[in-house]
Amino acid sequence: MTSPEDRVRELGLEIPDYANPPYGGRYGGGLKAFHRIGALVELSGLTPESRAGEQLHPGVVGADVSLDQARAAARLTAVHSLGMIRYAIGSLDRVVALSRALCFVLCAPGFDRLNEVSNAATELYLDVFGPDVGSVGRASIGAVSLTRSNCFELWLSLECAADTPAR
Amino acid sequence: MTSPEDRVRELGLEIPDYANPPYGGRYGGGLKAFHRIGALVELSGLTPESRAGEQLHPGVVGADVSLDQARAAARLTAVHSLGMIRYAIGSLDRVVALSRALCFVLCAPGFDRLNEVSNAATELYLDVFGPDVGSVGRASIGAVSLTRSNCFELWLSLECAADTPAR
Amino acid sequence: MTSPEDRVRELGLEIPDYANPPYGGRYGGGLKAFHRIGALVELSGLTPESRAGEQLHPGVVGADVSLDQARAAARLTAVHSLGMIRYAIGSLDRVVALSRALCFVLCAPGFDRLNEVSNAATELYLDVFGPDVGSVGRASIGAVSLTRSNCFELWLSLECAADTPAR
Repeated sequence: MTSPEDRVRELGLEIPDYANPPYGGRYGGGLKAFHRIGALVELSGLTPESRAGEQLHPGVVGADVSLDQARAAARLTAVHSLGMIRYAIGSLDRVVALSRALCFVLCAPGFDRLNEVSNAATELYLDVFGPDVGSVGRASIGAVSLTRSNCFELWLSLECAADTPAR
Repeated sequence: MTSPEDRVRELGLEIPDYANPPYGGRYGGGLKAFHRIGALVELSGLTPESRAGEQLHPGVVGADVSLDQARAAARLTAVHSLGMIRYAIGSLDRVVALSRALCFVLCAPGFDRLNEVSNAATELYLDVFGPDVGSVGRASIGAVSLTRSNCFELWLSLECAADTPAR
Repeated sequence: MTSPEDRVRELGLEIPDYANPPYGGRYGGGLKAFHRIGALVELSGLTPESRAGEQLHPGVVGADVSLDQARAAARLTAVHSLGMIRYAIGSLDRVVALSRALCFVLCAPGFDRLNEVSNAATELYLDVFGPDVGSVGRASIGAVSLTRSNCFELWLSLECAADTPAR
């Protein structure tokens, strides 16, 4: 059986390393990447920004960002979350199941296809983890602004194996 | 003492069945209705849409949707969440307590009575579960858009009885 | 070593009492301040409003509220959350770690410095709890409206000591 770590290699995904530089420094002091209580892991907000701060398709979806561009940004954000999961629990293979993803889309009034943006993120999870582990609860919310005008932001919780060592 | 399941019968609430069709299919692949870690249950996003996709009062609150209409949509969303809770843990009587409800309202700039919209949802919880179980933490957030222009979306977590069988 | 309770005395913070009057009464029935499941504490929404309902800098950030005013409101909201934490678990010294803060900013389209608003909240946590306990996951989301036009709202989860007595 293909494990999630095998699968990301097959897919050739470039998963960023959240160990270095430490998460959050660009945005302000006192941020951390995640918190774990028992098997519950709550991740900090994720964006379509590289560790160096390069943004994919910043702007307002339905105005200066197209649906396809927003989907690319959402998918990239999900790839970034894989790096954050690795950082939090050491390996994607320790994910028991994703729990919920709250998806914020910077968009124009009247843009009502938010689910199609978020699908690009959650379809990646399905592809990497399979349906038992990678299916996820979700809501998609239109934001009037996001930091640095990122077009997408992700707020994810998940369950890890109970015997995952503390970081 | 009246149990929550007794109470929804008394109230004559029509609670949808989230077992069939499976939740989320209309919106995209890889969605699930809930995730449970121990006694914590995190529900996926809920809307004022029937299982068949009929929407109650879609549109922008404070513009084309009135406060009363928005309240009706919020109450219906809470009714839907009862169905999701049943699906997740088998019976409303297994709810130890609601935890938190994040309430998103699709609304116009300047509409500042979001709490009155959300009250229609949380008052239903109070009516069904009583104050000890049905009181809930809450925040109400104005969204610039929601999928399919639903006027309300709910993001709920709760505590179930520790001995609730896994689904 | 300075404990968080010592530290808030050093800083001279005026921390409101959420025991009396009960939280939420101004907004509607059936609200509660927090819910705890084991070591996980989920707080209800917090705003820059005093217990009596006085608001600090209501309005739209980037339009009628300046960045500095928004930061003052965010910091005050974080002070309020300290009162809610005390109410939930008895003492700030029982916080094992903050988990995540979802920060909603009522703002104008194009205002993209949300992180600078939220920093005023999370910097206070760092100051009170120190980096091990007070660092926090975070996302900052632009809302088109908030109840009573508060310019900031906070949604916080945290971990308390496992032996914290039930309230």
